[in-house]
Amino acid sequence: MTICSFHPPLRTLMGPGPSDVSERVLQAMARPTVGHLDPSFIGMMDETKQLLQYVFQTKNELTFAVSAPGSAGMECCFANLVEPGDKVIVCQNGVFGGRMKENVERCGGIAVMVQDDWGHAVDPSKVEDALKANPDACLVAFVHAETSTGAQSDAKTLVELAHNHGCLTIVDSVTSLAGTPLKVDEWGIDAIYSGSQKCLSASPGLSPVSFNQHAADKIKRRTTKVQSWFLDLNLVMGYWGGEGKRAYHHTAPVNCLYGLHESLVIVQEEGLENSWDRHQRNHVALRDGLEQMGINFIVAKQDRLPQLNAVTIPEGVDDAAVRSRLLNDFDLEIGAGLGSLAGKVWRIGLMGHASSQKNVDFCLNSLRAVL
Amino acid sequence: MTICSFHPPLRTLMGPGPSDVSERVLQAMARPTVGHLDPSFIGMMDETKQLLQYVFQTKNELTFAVSAPGSAGMECCFANLVEPGDKVIVCQNGVFGGRMKENVERCGGIAVMVQDDWGHAVDPSKVEDALKANPDACLVAFVHAETSTGAQSDAKTLVELAHNHGCLTIVDSVTSLAGTPLKVDEWGIDAIYSGSQKCLSASPGLSPVSFNQHAADKIKRRTTKVQSWFLDLNLVMGYWGGEGKRAYHHTAPVNCLYGLHESLVIVQEEGLENSWDRHQRNHVALRDGLEQMGINFIVAKQDRLPQLNAVTIPEGVDDAAVRSRLLNDFDLEIGAGLGSLAGKVWRIGLMGHASSQKNVDFCLNSLRAVL
Repeated sequence: MTICSFHPPLRTLMGPGPSDVSERVLQAMARPTVGHLDPSFIGMMDETKQLLQYVFQTKNELTFAVSAPGSAGMECCFANLVEPGDKVIVCQNGVFGGRMKENVERCGGIAVMVQDDWGHAVDPSKVEDALKANPDACLVAFVHAETSTGAQSDAKTLVELAHNHGCLTIVDSVTSLAGTPLKVDEWGIDAIYSGSQKCLSASPGLSPVSFNQHAADKIKRRTTKVQSWFLDLNLVMGYWGGEGKRAYHHTAPVNCLYGLHESLVIVQEEGLENSWDRHQRNHVALRDGLEQMGINFIVAKQDRLPQLNAVTIPEGVDDAAVRSRLLNDFDLEIGAGLGSLAGKVWRIGLMGHASSQKNVDFCLNSLRAVL
Repeated sequence: MTICSFHPPLRTLMGPGPSDVSERVLQAMARPTVGHLDPSFIGMMDETKQLLQYVFQTKNELTFAVSAPGSAGMECCFANLVEPGDKVIVCQNGVFGGRMKENVERCGGIAVMVQDDWGHAVDPSKVEDALKANPDACLVAFVHAETSTGAQSDAKTLVELAHNHGCLTIVDSVTSLAGTPLKVDEWGIDAIYSGSQKCLSASPGLSPVSFNQHAADKIKRRTTKVQSWFLDLNLVMGYWGGEGKRAYHHTAPVNCLYGLHESLVIVQEEGLENSWDRHQRNHVALRDGLEQMGINFIVAKQDRLPQLNAVTIPEGVDDAAVRSRLLNDFDLEIGAGLGSLAGKVWRIGLMGHASSQKNVDFCLNSLRAVL
C-alpha cells in the first residue's frame, strides 16, 4: 500500500451544501496553527463571537461555534434543553424534523409530532392545536429552512405561538443563516443552531449556535446532568465565555475556525441585508431559467427558499444519469432528493459564495446541454 | 464594528497539542472543497481508513475519524459501548481518567475507579484486584498516554488482564498514536480513540477511532438506543462503511479530512517505526539538555512518554511569567500543568512534525535565555 497526497477536482457546488468555499476562506484555513489557548487565538474567538452575533442578529452572550458539524449543533440544543420527561412539540415537514424527534427521544423526552407535507411550510394552526392539546409541553422545535425540501417556515409566528403557551423554542437555521432574513432577538428565538457550510460558505465542520437568557436559565435549572460531556454548555462556556479566562475543555478546531472567521468577515463586508438580497436576486434568475425549460418547483411560491431550489425531475429523465453527467462533464454538483423525495427531485443550491449570476448561468446552460 | 481577516503569529508549538502542523498539511486543507458524497471524496475517505488502519496497526473494518475533536472520540466509545447499568472499571492517573468517569456516568453506567498517583503508570495489580472484586464489570477503560502527566501505561498487560476477566477495553491513545508503539490488533484492544492534533500533526478537530468485532458485537446487542444521534455508530458506519454505498448521515468536515489524509500520508512515507524512533531520539536529546539545566522529570524513567515531557518547575521560578516570555519573545509555546499539577509542572511536547532536533535545540536555548 502506498497512498499519495489527495488532489480534489475543482467543482462548482450547487447542491444542498457544502457550498463553494471562496479562495479567501481556503487560504485562511492554511494559516499557521496556533495553540487553542494562545492569546492571539482567543482574540480571534472573541471576534468570531461578535461576528456570529451579527449574522444571527442577536446580543446573546451564549453565542459560539460548536466544534463539530450542524448535526452536533442540533444535538447541543436538545441535549442541553431537554431533560428526561420533558414534552417537546416537534414540527416535521422534511428530513430534519425527523432528526429532531430522534434527538428528543434519545434525551429521554417525549416528542409530540406536528406533521406537514414535505415541501410545505409548517402550519401555525396545527402547532397551535398541539400547544392547546399539550399544556404540559415546554419546548417547540422546528426547522426554519428545510434543506430536504427547500421550504421556509414562518419562524416569527411560530416562536410567538410557542411563547404564548409558555414554551421555549429550538430553531434549525442550518440553511437559512445569512441566506434569508433571520432575526434571533427580534423574533425572540430561544435556542438556534446552524452550519458553517451553507450560506456562510465556510468549510463543513462547525455549527454556530446561540442561546438567550431564557434558554440559559432552563439549562441552569436542570436537575440532571447533560448526557453529553462534549456538548455540555456549562463546560463549553468556560472556554468560550467572555471573562478573559479560558478553562480548558476540549481542543478547538483551530484552522477550521480561521475559515469560519474569514467567512464571517466576508458577510460583514457585504452586509447581511445585501447578502439576503443577493440570494433572492439569484434565485429569481434561476427560477425564471428553470421555468423556461419547463422545470417546476415543488414548493409554493411564497414558501420558497432562495438558497435551495427543489424542483421536480422532468418525466422520463434518469435522475442519477443526469447528475453524473453534470458532475463528470461539467464538474457541477447538484443535489439528489432525500428520504421520500429521493429520485423525484433535484435540489439546486445557491448558497453563500455559490450564489452568483455566473453560477446561475452555468447551471442553466449545463442542464440544457444534458437534458 | 469592523473586524478584519485574522493573521495568526507563527509559533513553534511544543505544548501538549496542537503540535506544529506542517506546510504540506496546511496546503492540503486549502484545496478546493468538494461535496461530501462526491466520488473523489469517497475515494479519499477509503484511503484515510486504510491509513488509519496502518497507524493503529489494525485490520478493524470499523476504523474511521469522528468528525469532532478527541473528546468526542472518547464520548463515541463510551456512548456506544456503555449501556445504562453497565459497570466499567476506569483507571485514573491524571485528568483524562476523570473525564472517562464523567462519560461512564453520563451514559448511565457505574464507574469503579482505580486510582494511581498522577505521573505514575496505571498499576496492573490494582486493576486485577478491581476485576476480582467486580466480577460483573464488562469494560475496562484506561489512558495509554496521559497527556496531563506524560506517563505511559502498559496497554498490552492491561488489555490482557481485562480479557482474562471477560471485559472489553476502551483505550485513550490521543497522545500515543504515531508517537510511541501502539499495536491495536496484537494487543487485542477492543475500542480506541485518538486525536488529529498530537503525533499526527494534523489540525485539531478530528478523532480517529477503531473498534474490533467484539466491540461491534456489544454495540449490536444493545437493548437501548445510543444516546447520541451524532455519535451513533450504527448510523455513522452507513456513511464510512466499505460497501461503496454512502448513506447521508452528517456533512463530513471535508477540508479537515484533507489535512488528516495528508498527515497520514506523511507518517506512511516516514514509516511508523521510524516515527516512533524519531520521537524517542528527540526525547533523549531534550531530556539530557533539561537535566543539564537541573530540570527534572516528574515521571519515572521507564514510564515516560517521549512525546510529552512533564518536568518540575524549578523552585522560585514564576510559571506564568516564563511561559509568557517564551511565547512573546520566542514565539514558543510550552504547556502549563493541568488540574492538581497546575503551577507545578511544564509540559513540553515533542509531537509529530514538532519532534525534531531543531526544536529540541530551540527549546533548550530559549529556556536557558529566560531562566
